[in-house]
Amino acid sequence: MKLMSYSLAGRETWGAVVDGGVAELAGRTGHATLADFIASADFARRDALVAGLAADVPLSDVRYLPVITKPEKIVCAVRNYMDHHQEVLAAGMHRELSEQPPIFLRVWRSQTPHEGPIVRPRVSESLDWEGELAVIIGKEGRDIQEADAWDHVAGYSCYNDASVREWQFHAKQIASGKNFEATGGFGPWMVTADEIAPGRELKLETRLNGEVVQSSHTGHMIFSVPRLIAYASTIFTLVPGDVIATGTPAGVGWSKKPPRFMKPGDVVEVEIEAVGLLRNPVVAQD
Amino acid sequence: MKLMSYSLAGRETWGAVVDGGVAELAGRTGHATLADFIASADFARRDALVAGLAADVPLSDVRYLPVITKPEKIVCAVRNYMDHHQEVLAAGMHRELSEQPPIFLRVWRSQTPHEGPIVRPRVSESLDWEGELAVIIGKEGRDIQEADAWDHVAGYSCYNDASVREWQFHAKQIASGKNFEATGGFGPWMVTADEIAPGRELKLETRLNGEVVQSSHTGHMIFSVPRLIAYASTIFTLVPGDVIATGTPAGVGWSKKPPRFMKPGDVVEVEIEAVGLLRNPVVAQD
Repeated sequence: MKLMSYSLAGRETWGAVVDGGVAELAGRTGHATLADFIASADFARRDALVAGLAADVPLSDVRYLPVITKPEKIVCAVRNYMDHHQEVLAAGMHRELSEQPPIFLRVWRSQTPHEGPIVRPRVSESLDWEGELAVIIGKEGRDIQEADAWDHVAGYSCYNDASVREWQFHAKQIASGKNFEATGGFGPWMVTADEIAPGRELKLETRLNGEVVQSSHTGHMIFSVPRLIAYASTIFTLVPGDVIATGTPAGVGWSKKPPRFMKPGDVVEVEIEAVGLLRNPVVAQD
Repeated sequence: MKLMSYSLAGRETWGAVVDGGVAELAGRTGHATLADFIASADFARRDALVAGLAADVPLSDVRYLPVITKPEKIVCAVRNYMDHHQEVLAAGMHRELSEQPPIFLRVWRSQTPHEGPIVRPRVSESLDWEGELAVIIGKEGRDIQEADAWDHVAGYSCYNDASVREWQFHAKQIASGKNFEATGGFGPWMVTADEIAPGRELKLETRLNGEVVQSSHTGHMIFSVPRLIAYASTIFTLVPGDVIATGTPAGVGWSKKPPRFMKPGDVVEVEIEAVGLLRNPVVAQD
């Protein structure tokens, strides 16, 4: 099942993708947000809830919202694809792989939805793409064991962890370049975990104006989804609607020779097998 | 004026510290949280709102909550005191000062209130203190200029950016060691900005079981409060209730020879001149 957040006539809501459009579920279930629904017992009854529903509105009529509009936490893996690690080394940055998953945090305000603009800030032209598989947490937990981790996954989406490289490299801590407002593409929807076998290798492709710039698959991950969940949940309680952006494969712009960045007028797409296609136009900050 | 969040008989509320206790303001103003109040036009009328109020309850009867219970963002400065930078170098870590403020993010779930426990996780004994001045944002803004930054400050509080050093050093990104649940002491209250002249040097002291372990003042900051606000607001919109933890001075435990850490049974205090005293017992994770 595909679940999505959207707005219609200025009202924020959510629903399920059905033939020809979206069936609104906020009113039908009493859960104001998709995160609330995922956190509820109704989430396990979703098939029965959606069975027989027709679309209330075609997808072309809605404005997408970030799949989870305001995640409590967005935990992002760094250097989590072996092919990306190798290109970073080739670009002259000498770093060892760490034995534990390197992570940083994004704030929800840095997100932008499917078809929403990725905003290049005024302060830098070094806006780069990072196509990633996003994992959405479905069940609360602390100190989750790897063996139990898949049970905590509600579903998957596409993420573009777009990064302002100059600011990312201001200091050892990269949070600044990773949190510019409206840079993190997140969408178009969440595919529920029952549709994708745990650990299945998914092809991941990022395209800039139609040209393939990243082409890899999730089998290149260094730290697996269960490992990332176990690690993060050792630190804090993971809750429904939390997002784990699992890192990007090879092909980011700054590792290319010469470096390539996104500029206003560009269109960037992240497509992940069995998950969907996230598309964002790039615009300049007002 | 001192404003604080607290719970009484299991109900979360907030109010003003008046002679002998706290005058509840949630019901009197209609603002559910202190952050909502700060964001409202009523915040500017706070003196009139509080004038003549008597305490509803003594401070000894309430359970403190983190001053802002769920900040949208907690932006933390790293290596922002010259005296701390020098001790880090002396401890053998070779780092250059960056030209821009290094920052990382905390999640609200990592916070703990005045008199609340700082929880040492099961996975590491390397729990360290970091006394800091916290700045609470009062006015929304993006791309705030340094000259205008003080206008965006609602007030100040004490922060203990307690850190699990082993996890902090798992990788270049320190977010993991800085976000353990119930480690970031935040309290006891917010002193409104009108009571502290912009840029005033404030004495800051951290004590472990009564012994002074950090003794410095905010004049040692490398990047000033206006600079931190300007930098952060270039990245994203700062909103009322956002917190900026401005970094810690010399005297952290891991730079001592031999290193010292906090253990269950300890009591740690952060006291900042004109702001207040934040006290936390240290307990073991269940």
